[in-house]
Amino acid sequence: MIPFAAPVRDLRFVLEELLEHGSLALPGFEEASPDLVEAVLEEAARLANEVWAPLNASGDAQGCRLKEGRVQVPDGFIAAYRGYAEGGWNGIGVSESLGGQGLPEVVASAVQEMLHGANMALGLCPMLTAGAIEALAHHGSDALKETYLPKLIEGSWTGTMNLTEPQAGSDLSRVRTRAVPCPEEEGGHYRLFGQKIFITWGEHDAAENILHLVLARTPDAPEGNKGISLFLVPKYLEPESLVGADGSLGERNDVVCTSIEHKLGIHGSPTCTLSFGDHDGAIGYLVGEEGRGLNHMFTMMNEARHKVGVQGIGVAERACQHAFAYALDRVQGKARGSEATISEHLDVRRMLLSMRARTDALRALALYCAAQLDVARHAGDAAERAAAQARVEVLIPVVKAFSTDQAVEIASLGVQVHGGMGYIEETGAAQLLRDARIAPIYEGTNGIQALDLAGRKLQRDGGAALTSLIDDVEATTQALAANPALAALGECLAAGVADLRAALVLVLEQGTDPESGPDAVQAYATPFLALVGHVLCAWQMGRAALKARAAVEAGSDDPFYAAKLQSADFAIRQWLPVGRAQRAVIEAGMASLAAFDAAAR
Amino acid sequence: MIPFAAPVRDLRFVLEELLEHGSLALPGFEEASPDLVEAVLEEAARLANEVWAPLNASGDAQGCRLKEGRVQVPDGFIAAYRGYAEGGWNGIGVSESLGGQGLPEVVASAVQEMLHGANMALGLCPMLTAGAIEALAHHGSDALKETYLPKLIEGSWTGTMNLTEPQAGSDLSRVRTRAVPCPEEEGGHYRLFGQKIFITWGEHDAAENILHLVLARTPDAPEGNKGISLFLVPKYLEPESLVGADGSLGERNDVVCTSIEHKLGIHGSPTCTLSFGDHDGAIGYLVGEEGRGLNHMFTMMNEARHKVGVQGIGVAERACQHAFAYALDRVQGKARGSEATISEHLDVRRMLLSMRARTDALRALALYCAAQLDVARHAGDAAERAAAQARVEVLIPVVKAFSTDQAVEIASLGVQVHGGMGYIEETGAAQLLRDARIAPIYEGTNGIQALDLAGRKLQRDGGAALTSLIDDVEATTQALAANPALAALGECLAAGVADLRAALVLVLEQGTDPESGPDAVQAYATPFLALVGHVLCAWQMGRAALKARAAVEAGSDDPFYAAKLQSADFAIRQWLPVGRAQRAVIEAGMASLAAFDAAAR
Repeated sequence: MIPFAAPVRDLRFVLEELLEHGSLALPGFEEASPDLVEAVLEEAARLANEVWAPLNASGDAQGCRLKEGRVQVPDGFIAAYRGYAEGGWNGIGVSESLGGQGLPEVVASAVQEMLHGANMALGLCPMLTAGAIEALAHHGSDALKETYLPKLIEGSWTGTMNLTEPQAGSDLSRVRTRAVPCPEEEGGHYRLFGQKIFITWGEHDAAENILHLVLARTPDAPEGNKGISLFLVPKYLEPESLVGADGSLGERNDVVCTSIEHKLGIHGSPTCTLSFGDHDGAIGYLVGEEGRGLNHMFTMMNEARHKVGVQGIGVAERACQHAFAYALDRVQGKARGSEATISEHLDVRRMLLSMRARTDALRALALYCAAQLDVARHAGDAAERAAAQARVEVLIPVVKAFSTDQAVEIASLGVQVHGGMGYIEETGAAQLLRDARIAPIYEGTNGIQALDLAGRKLQRDGGAALTSLIDDVEATTQALAANPALAALGECLAAGVADLRAALVLVLEQGTDPESGPDAVQAYATPFLALVGHVLCAWQMGRAALKARAAVEAGSDDPFYAAKLQSADFAIRQWLPVGRAQRAVIEAGMASLAAFDAAAR
Repeated sequence: MIPFAAPVRDLRFVLEELLEHGSLALPGFEEASPDLVEAVLEEAARLANEVWAPLNASGDAQGCRLKEGRVQVPDGFIAAYRGYAEGGWNGIGVSESLGGQGLPEVVASAVQEMLHGANMALGLCPMLTAGAIEALAHHGSDALKETYLPKLIEGSWTGTMNLTEPQAGSDLSRVRTRAVPCPEEEGGHYRLFGQKIFITWGEHDAAENILHLVLARTPDAPEGNKGISLFLVPKYLEPESLVGADGSLGERNDVVCTSIEHKLGIHGSPTCTLSFGDHDGAIGYLVGEEGRGLNHMFTMMNEARHKVGVQGIGVAERACQHAFAYALDRVQGKARGSEATISEHLDVRRMLLSMRARTDALRALALYCAAQLDVARHAGDAAERAAAQARVEVLIPVVKAFSTDQAVEIASLGVQVHGGMGYIEETGAAQLLRDARIAPIYEGTNGIQALDLAGRKLQRDGGAALTSLIDDVEATTQALAANPALAALGECLAAGVADLRAALVLVLEQGTDPESGPDAVQAYATPFLALVGHVLCAWQMGRAALKARAAVEAGSDDPFYAAKLQSADFAIRQWLPVGRAQRAVIEAGMASLAAFDAAAR
């Protein structure tokens, strides 16, 4: 099995050179220094490489088992998770006022990428907890926060997100789980009844307690989205006793895992069906306002979507490492007349460089988005915060959908580089493809992301936030054009900018055309998101090329920069054109979709 | 589980309307009539739908087991295979003079597609046998043919292809298995020693005997390709006794299955490691000439590659059927203000139509290629045969690589249409993705196909055969332009033709440029094959649109034609542009690949 080496060098390049550690200059991060960030990355890399990564293949092979309502996760997972929690990693991006480490999101994202690359199935456990922290921190009452947040942040308890029901997937308005209020004198809580499916890490023994955040409908609530509220349902009640002198557990709540799914991948992550209220009802506490459950859930969903994008990048990075290691070792055929490893064959190099260039580009874009999140939360100036927030809202669906679609393709190319060995499970390349394949589906399918971008996000500001981003891309094309060694990249990127501007006009027209109706933009959404993703990734690689070229011109002989220039060249000249084709797709119109009757044949 | 319905209607459309049953007009097919072909397709569909398809999911879940050298295939597979053989299906495309049914290749291919769509893992068994039949029929001595061909053609014995060794994959010059000639007085056979890996259906109990076709090296043979010969190594020797009155088996040859692989997919197809000559040496018979083993192997490889392309299309078809069935059933969200199945959402329709349009297009191209194979073999005129053969040689790498790459994408889209359910194995969509993923790898990786096209095939005739194909595509653009309802398609297809012609010039230059060297074309091969695939598929859909439009204009209200026009529109206006982008990729040049050092970072 190929060992994992967390990509610290490239993460540092992005944080230090592309983003110039901008987040560290924001109010609230005075304690954090570049040296501290470097130490954090190195330490996280050690955890990823030495503790989490070696459990990836064994966790996949062993999977999870359900026995009498208890889920056994793969051997080693509990210790690996506890080591992570005890190391304080769970609170790395959480504000110090809440007991976290208070580091910028951009640093937290870098750490997440390493951990997901090491072991995506295990990485899901803290990823879901982070969502629960976010929901409680923003919408929980002081009492709920006091009782539950510290344990979640230290990671001794974990969190889950309970949205999906058999009839309610992308369409959460169909949620049927009921939450019945109990008499005020009993404490003002609710009793929940219903079934939730696809609950990631919904049951396990890695933590003392599990806090389920559950969407449910109160009695007499209106139909649809506005009748849905958010509840906290702990696995064990009366948490006081959990930390009491006698060490006894609180009472078991009326929620039970009735089955776990047999999935294509992420076998080490239990995907549970949870049954609430088989007896007296599962006791739950209202989070935020009644009827605003979906809004509250979406607060955290935005960040969860960014995290899923980052997760895709982690798996893509590992796929690169497997493919490069194999290609550099496998002798087959001849190149320039001599025996050669397959990495010498240009067609294999095309696959390798395509994997590497895309992974680098996706990473730079996802971290750029995280840095904008830092600005949106921490900048002193309100207008600056608002502008960054507008940018984040456009970027997040792109980071989520484009990174995960690309991660599947990158992992699939990784299988291909291995030839027949790639199809054999023991090699590990196939697992990465199986694991990666979930990311375009969960936390809002990539189709939903595209609708969010082309529908809601663009239409509400008339494309202003995206246009401002495109203006920045255009500035990069000019910087590239000014450097003779990079002028060809500038030209290609400028062509991408022109395509994107033209497509944006068309998509905005679709969204406002009363003839075609509000749904029409859906037909254009996915091609449009792909075009945005390609242009923004090419932009980041253009910026990377400028930095790398400057380093080379200043006399650096670090091979990292030469490699980065090759990645940038490939990303902009060989990859971007494929994305640019989406303009033609969009311009051709979608008459065939509107007329299409799936039942016809 | 979604039942499979073999796509008889579309297969008939391609055979009857697109290809106008041209193969039936060739010498040698006088006995075959359109009615007979129709009956054959209906009967094959029954076998596929009722016998093979229901075993697909159970075969995947159960997989194969190895016990003391014996492989157990999944429950039901032996009976299903024997039913196929007893029905005479194994010899459907084999000449009557050899005991086959003597139907055209285009009909055999249609049947193969249905069977692979029903059960790809099981379909591999006769697919490998077909390769063995081909090799023996072309290169075997009369004695070998007499002894072995009838049993292979009736399917009571099966065949395997033994090429790969741990150190010899794409590079077969590294084969080390030894074949030592025995003294003439012992019968002129050889004894083989060595290990072969990745042997599909290399050991099983579905047939009385297994005939291994094995590449091996004779003593004192030269290094490299020219030292390799082809041998027939039966599992059981002395076949006479097999059919003797006492029914006893012949002596077991010295070849044994030592392990089977744990693979990503095609779990019902045993992938074996075979050990030859652990004792006295496995007795083998030379097939064809000593030292020409690779040439002989490639005779059958050409057709095997076509079959793998067809296999990809079969799986893509089944992925379509799963996705359509799910999308037409799953209610989620609203469309035009009312509750809707997801098939009503334009973004889901985009996925469905993309799957359907691509599958239709790939099928039409693969069957066009099969029809050209019929002409190449059966036309009365030698020049006509030669022209068709030249076309076949260009088409086969495209059919193999493009169909299988697309099949993976189509199966992956199929998973996506299912949302979370797609990731659950019980749904069946994930199996199709896992199964499809092998097809770009085996029978020559898709990278090898691209090199075969852009290197060998194009360079040796200066692109003449491809240019003649492109001229035919251009004629279709003119026919489309002449019909006002299809003129937009003609315009798009013409743009594709222009791109392909420009790219062809560039690729031919690469192959002959003494500066860049003979390897340079490798860098362009995969993008070029993708461009060819897109244009030729769009061509077929343009031809389909002409036929469908003519039917509509003649008053047909068959919804098949309306659906075909939508597929064609999507294929040409939404899918072709993505392929056309490969021209820009090619024109940007491959400097980054030439300079790329995979070991640098």
